[in-house]
Amino acid sequence: MRMYDIIEKKRDGKELTKYEIDYFIKEYCEDKIPDYQVSALLMAIYFNGLSKEELFNLTFAMRDSSKKIDLSDIKIPGKYIVDKHSTGGVGDKVTLIVLPIIAALGVGVCKMSGKGLGFTGGTADKLESIEGYDINIPIKNALKQVQEIGLCLISQSNEIAIADKKLYALRDTTATVESMDLIASSIMSKKLACGVDKILLDVTVGSGAFMKNLEDAKLLAKKMIEIGEAANVETKAVITSMSEPLGRNVGNALEIKEVISFLLADEESIMSDEFRDLREVVLEIAAQMISMSGVCTDIEQNKRDIIRVILSGEAYEKFLELVKAQKGKVEKVYLDWLHKDMYLPVTKDKVTFFKEIHAQSSGYIVSIDSKSIGEALVCLGGGRRTKEDSIDYSVGFEFSKKVGDKVEEGDVILTVLYNDKQNFEEAFEYIENAIYIDNIDDELGEKLKLKPHVLDILGVDDIHE
Amino acid sequence: MRMYDIIEKKRDGKELTKYEIDYFIKEYCEDKIPDYQVSALLMAIYFNGLSKEELFNLTFAMRDSSKKIDLSDIKIPGKYIVDKHSTGGVGDKVTLIVLPIIAALGVGVCKMSGKGLGFTGGTADKLESIEGYDINIPIKNALKQVQEIGLCLISQSNEIAIADKKLYALRDTTATVESMDLIASSIMSKKLACGVDKILLDVTVGSGAFMKNLEDAKLLAKKMIEIGEAANVETKAVITSMSEPLGRNVGNALEIKEVISFLLADEESIMSDEFRDLREVVLEIAAQMISMSGVCTDIEQNKRDIIRVILSGEAYEKFLELVKAQKGKVEKVYLDWLHKDMYLPVTKDKVTFFKEIHAQSSGYIVSIDSKSIGEALVCLGGGRRTKEDSIDYSVGFEFSKKVGDKVEEGDVILTVLYNDKQNFEEAFEYIENAIYIDNIDDELGEKLKLKPHVLDILGVDDIHE
Repeated sequence: MRMYDIIEKKRDGKELTKYEIDYFIKEYCEDKIPDYQVSALLMAIYFNGLSKEELFNLTFAMRDSSKKIDLSDIKIPGKYIVDKHSTGGVGDKVTLIVLPIIAALGVGVCKMSGKGLGFTGGTADKLESIEGYDINIPIKNALKQVQEIGLCLISQSNEIAIADKKLYALRDTTATVESMDLIASSIMSKKLACGVDKILLDVTVGSGAFMKNLEDAKLLAKKMIEIGEAANVETKAVITSMSEPLGRNVGNALEIKEVISFLLADEESIMSDEFRDLREVVLEIAAQMISMSGVCTDIEQNKRDIIRVILSGEAYEKFLELVKAQKGKVEKVYLDWLHKDMYLPVTKDKVTFFKEIHAQSSGYIVSIDSKSIGEALVCLGGGRRTKEDSIDYSVGFEFSKKVGDKVEEGDVILTVLYNDKQNFEEAFEYIENAIYIDNIDDELGEKLKLKPHVLDILGVDDIHE
Repeated sequence: MRMYDIIEKKRDGKELTKYEIDYFIKEYCEDKIPDYQVSALLMAIYFNGLSKEELFNLTFAMRDSSKKIDLSDIKIPGKYIVDKHSTGGVGDKVTLIVLPIIAALGVGVCKMSGKGLGFTGGTADKLESIEGYDINIPIKNALKQVQEIGLCLISQSNEIAIADKKLYALRDTTATVESMDLIASSIMSKKLACGVDKILLDVTVGSGAFMKNLEDAKLLAKKMIEIGEAANVETKAVITSMSEPLGRNVGNALEIKEVISFLLADEESIMSDEFRDLREVVLEIAAQMISMSGVCTDIEQNKRDIIRVILSGEAYEKFLELVKAQKGKVEKVYLDWLHKDMYLPVTKDKVTFFKEIHAQSSGYIVSIDSKSIGEALVCLGGGRRTKEDSIDYSVGFEFSKKVGDKVEEGDVILTVLYNDKQNFEEAFEYIENAIYIDNIDDELGEKLKLKPHVLDILGVDDIHE
């Protein structure tokens, strides 16, 4: 068997056999096939796609390319272990809110998260903005932590799905990241190697996501659900909007701050406008995960329970337990608005400057381009241009207004927190072009505000229509 | 500027600027861009093609990637220096016949030729089958030889069009050879770096050629003619058939033998059926080259002159002068059929076995698949599977019958000359499937025999239709 023939076959739109795919992944992992042949194959896949069989075979070959995780120690009889994965975005702190909530409701999760690259943030970075938080603990200790406190959040292990690691690094330098089949196989190979029973996918759609339109997002979701089915791992997908950044805060420490605000919210604020998009997405994803775990399959009941553990403080307590268990620094702080002392995580890096950005005209905010906001964060030093870059955890944006909000000329739309004036200037160009205000009528403005952020929920039934 | 952005742009079907193309070629030649990025770009070009501007800019960047040849020493005032290039095939010995002929008619050529790879042969290998023939002489000496005897045939210099050398090696291992734009830029960059005034292209079409159908062959020809025009180098293309092997002999030394037979032919044999396809192609290409050189623009007159210098022995004398000038061994041989002593080149490698292949049924030979015959030659050791392979110059095939010939069951169609029985068995499988005999009526059989081998002639006027 020759790699040349495999490239040529794919280039000509023919179907690769399981044997050919296994050969390619195995030999590549053993460094017997050079990068330049693999990148040519990846580009051919970008153009010609993969058949269903090819996609399954590629994903399984990648899953089996190195050791898999055995989760039997944390498995509760009669219950399922559910993993979550988001296809990424700007301001996406859902994992950090959902995991403590479902742990408080008895659904344990040992989750691996990645670092951010380019305009998309990474959950691993957000956690690392907490002083002392150790993201690199061994799997064995992580599983022990799940048994003790019900959750664990660590960085993507270097030992599982090695093929994905090598392929991703190559795709990242050869403009072949955006292939839907390669995205699907990359995500699912990692998740399947984690040994979970079920997978809940958050497939984001919009300028700040890989998938730019709903149709593509659904197609990607269906591909991953099919892979899950072929691997006998039930997979569901929640399609969520990433056209504007999710929530109010963008930036690593700032997103931790928003996570805490959300988990500490009282009855009035949790249902308020402040959290409208974040609440919708969190409730849906957490409720679906609880349902999939077998704890309770009534989605509406789950949503009520979620609100309950937030208001009771149990969800926040779980978050604090997680931070403490992984050596994150917490400090007792007197919070005036709650009239009591609270423990809060301490974020590393302090921010020096802030600047308010004002509305240039009156009207409704029609759009806030999430990709531009993600790029602006990279300009501030809050994201990576290349994998080797270090980041400034403190910088970012706090939005006072979001899409559908009415503004008068001069109103503050967002506050930029930064440490370098030159960086601010660069970021400002992106921010300026990201926000679009239009003088639409009130009815249309209200409609914009009420636009759903959970766009669809797809399960195994949807791929057999 | 980042190579990543160049790949992405091409992947997305956008046009690369001259600046981007120059950057890519320059940095790649200086080893500052890794192969894996370039192979991804090449695959994207395979799928999305190049615009006219991109094709020109790529070709010129490749042409200018290293030193160019100065032909002013061999330039005759009022005449043009014409180069020839064939896109390759099976049994293609046209260069070896045409060059001595036109040199005998006063058209001097200093030609570089390549080695064969895969099922296509290379003129350099054919010449090297002559014992002692030195193909690697320096350009300076080559030009001196042209001044002395009117022609020189050397191997592709390692010093010109370095970018093409690097790119070709990469394309050859990444299944990106077959891109029409990459073929056009590769050929034309090499030819333009040779400093000639005009270029005559032999664009082959058929199973044993890069271009499998006439439409593609014309498109490739037009692309190269356009590049020539943009570079101010008049370019013409003769489209020739490569559906069956050209001429009667396939194999390095065997093709030299056919070259000699052709150049030594008498009045009867030169116009006989034996040479029907080879004569047609040689006459057209030689006549066109003489016309382009400015010596005589009357194509029919040129064809008469070509026959004249063959029958007078002048063309054969030129061939012998070439072989001797480049230290090829020649021997005095008594040739019974001419009733005289002649000098003949001595080919290295002797052949041990021969086997006749017989017609399995009666009828007309409808097709002889040239690609299969080329592959069979590789099996015998007469061609290379990889660039590093050494070859057996002696092996090959002599066809007694060609397409359009009537055969009775049991007639000899070809003779296989070989040195290894195992190799023969492998080759035999290809040969068996290559020849198709059908019981068609005589009128159709005659039509097959009379089918032209020169399919079209394209010039600068044809691209401005």
